Amino acid sequence: MQKPSIPKGTRDFSPVEMMRRNYIFDTIKRIFRLYGFAPLETPSMENLSTLLGKYGDEGDKLLFKVLNSGDYAAGLSDDEVRQASKICEKGLRYDLTVPFARYVVQHRGEISFPFKRYQVQPVWRADRPQKGRYREFYQCDVDVIGTRSLLCEVELVEIVERVFRALGIRVALKVNNRKILYGIAETIGHADKMTDITVAIDKLEKIGLDNVKAELAERGLDKRAVEQLQPILELSGDNKQKLNALKVIIGGSETGLKGIGELESVFGYIERSGVGLQVDLDLSLARGLNYYTGAIFEVKALDYAIGSICGGGRYDDLTGIFGMPDTSGVGISFGADRIYDVMTGLGLFPEEVDSSTRLLFANFGGEEEAVSLALLRQLRDAHIAAEIYPEASKMKKQMEYADRRSIPYVAIVGSDELAAGAVTLKDMRTGEQRKVAFGDLVKYVK
Amino acid sequence: MQKPSIPKGTRDFSPVEMMRRNYIFDTIKRIFRLYGFAPLETPSMENLSTLLGKYGDEGDKLLFKVLNSGDYAAGLSDDEVRQASKICEKGLRYDLTVPFARYVVQHRGEISFPFKRYQVQPVWRADRPQKGRYREFYQCDVDVIGTRSLLCEVELVEIVERVFRALGIRVALKVNNRKILYGIAETIGHADKMTDITVAIDKLEKIGLDNVKAELAERGLDKRAVEQLQPILELSGDNKQKLNALKVIIGGSETGLKGIGELESVFGYIERSGVGLQVDLDLSLARGLNYYTGAIFEVKALDYAIGSICGGGRYDDLTGIFGMPDTSGVGISFGADRIYDVMTGLGLFPEEVDSSTRLLFANFGGEEEAVSLALLRQLRDAHIAAEIYPEASKMKKQMEYADRRSIPYVAIVGSDELAAGAVTLKDMRTGEQRKVAFGDLVKYVK
Repeated sequence: MQKPSIPKGTRDFSPVEMMRRNYIFDTIKRIFRLYGFAPLETPSMENLSTLLGKYGDEGDKLLFKVLNSGDYAAGLSDDEVRQASKICEKGLRYDLTVPFARYVVQHRGEISFPFKRYQVQPVWRADRPQKGRYREFYQCDVDVIGTRSLLCEVELVEIVERVFRALGIRVALKVNNRKILYGIAETIGHADKMTDITVAIDKLEKIGLDNVKAELAERGLDKRAVEQLQPILELSGDNKQKLNALKVIIGGSETGLKGIGELESVFGYIERSGVGLQVDLDLSLARGLNYYTGAIFEVKALDYAIGSICGGGRYDDLTGIFGMPDTSGVGISFGADRIYDVMTGLGLFPEEVDSSTRLLFANFGGEEEAVSLALLRQLRDAHIAAEIYPEASKMKKQMEYADRRSIPYVAIVGSDELAAGAVTLKDMRTGEQRKVAFGDLVKYVK
Repeated sequence: MQKPSIPKGTRDFSPVEMMRRNYIFDTIKRIFRLYGFAPLETPSMENLSTLLGKYGDEGDKLLFKVLNSGDYAAGLSDDEVRQASKICEKGLRYDLTVPFARYVVQHRGEISFPFKRYQVQPVWRADRPQKGRYREFYQCDVDVIGTRSLLCEVELVEIVERVFRALGIRVALKVNNRKILYGIAETIGHADKMTDITVAIDKLEKIGLDNVKAELAERGLDKRAVEQLQPILELSGDNKQKLNALKVIIGGSETGLKGIGELESVFGYIERSGVGLQVDLDLSLARGLNYYTGAIFEVKALDYAIGSICGGGRYDDLTGIFGMPDTSGVGISFGADRIYDVMTGLGLFPEEVDSSTRLLFANFGGEEEAVSLALLRQLRDAHIAAEIYPEASKMKKQMEYADRRSIPYVAIVGSDELAAGAVTLKDMRTGEQRKVAFGDLVKYVK
């Protein structure tokens, strides 16, 4: 018989991996809740009509389509059966943003706006599997929709600070504003080419200034425009200095000035609130998604080389695709897989995360087992995760089990212990053994 | 534009529904962990070869199949394209049991047996949607595999007790043993018809004794056998009396006696451990799944009419389908949707479950907003979920928002409060207002 396997690009998560992942998810969710965000879940399958056309041609190709159930080909011609759109009406969600927009429009009558929601669910993409890229992965999104208040941007910055502080990851937050990028495009006489410009700028760090300039020329920007752009890309100084310099350069663009004003407000709030996080205006930050219209964010780990581990921005018309225009919102998404890699790479998971059980009773059967079971019940009543080895096997086997499961304590109740009314408690980390009276066990292990 | 919708049989879970569902999931998981069970997750998609043939012909039809990505029909003849098996190689998981068995076999070298795992994930079935039946729903499974120890059965009974006690649901646990059912079949001379007999017995409560007898005759049992069965179905008394009577009736069946012995052990452990749960031997309990070989369990709510809300049993060869025989295990599954319905029906959700935020600051802008933000930060530092209305809107609108979100406290910091150094705190449940000094707010609200 063939060894069983799973589809390429998908993963099993072992208990240790799960406990580490849950440590990340629980931390993130706890802080989302601290800011008044409430959980939401949408179905794994959406109608294809909801998904198609929302992620560009490339995205459409990466959707996993679900075959219609029952006799999927009944009544269809051969040509029709060869069209995925005829035999599939549902697809697996590709991200959490489009389902969120769909939810908001569908349930607009029941929602109290501003609507603060978080959503932590898997998404699926038929990408070519490669290192660090999976066909099923979790997204952790947090959004507030239905207000233009810049306090929301500030809250998201605070959330970023608290999450990574709690996880022990030192990070820098890069901020930009799409309105400034538009202002730049307008100023150099290519307002129509904002998308080309931002896509090219987005690559500045990866491919360097010269290649970006070449790419901009390729995308139809004349030489003068490309040259006008250069000083903007090379702006230096702190956030305030950069914004002041920008005010002069793109002062002719109303939209650009509005973007500058927004960032000044956000930076002002952040300064007053005493957020202990490095926040840098980075004009090369563009982010690929076209629905952003205001602030954009990206978080990088300072001590580990990996792409961005969190990002997002403000959008003014996300729900417009489903017929509900003029509903502004802002959100960010945490990349759980990369955060996991950073924490593993830097050894940041607390030791206790790896053990699901605090204490194991060795099993000797008979009266010893009966007494162990009574003590075990006391531990569980005191909310201490504990178990008993289910069989009276050889001691070595039972100890190996405790060791492989990273259980810190093994309690031994043999005939001597029964007589003495005290367990022999072995600390598996130090190897140290000591006697603990039955009545003191809960207190000692807690 | 058409109002957006979701596929039939699927659901969106609103924040209030999610908070209630999480209350159930968190309670169940916490108690799983208390017993030393560790989390596991498997991919949503499995290879169709893993899934097909594991759930009977009916189950195969209910699998959701995922279309191969890319050019799925390339190089196939028209006939081939009409075969789902040619254009789909993956399917959505149908339950958590088969993926668990697949996982255990695939990772046998890394697992420490006995392997105690819990798994809470959605499953998908292309069932006809109807009230209470969905095409996507969560299962909460807990299993221990790699030991025949009856202590595991006892642990599961204790878990059932703790979960439903924590949730406030009064329940009865029905227990039976497949070996006893086999012993019965053997005794009446139809050992080969055990499946027919158990399927028929399973319907006893639903269709009554006469119909079960008719069905048994239809399934090929002769009249004498059906009559021999009747006294067994009508056994009465407590568990001990029933088992003693059974020992006489099926005493000629070695397997049957073994089943009786197993249940006597389990009942003995339960009695000594003082589990405060009604546990009844019910010989009409059969459960549909053929892989059970020992104890079987089913839990019903005492105060709410609905099917079983939890069930499971012991299996001796679950992993045999993937080439790893003789690996006994036992597990149960909690029905989250039904538990949700019971709790909603009986009004068992604690009030605080419905509010994600404990306190809302009304927003008046300016200096008042700045002071509110500073206080807000103090609350959050003290782990109190709090927020500020993001705009300085009309008071009525802000109050309505707090009301609709079930936020228990609204803090007002206007010019008077600024001067007095105290917030006006409104209790939204009672309508009562009082002044609380800035420095006392955390303590008061906590």
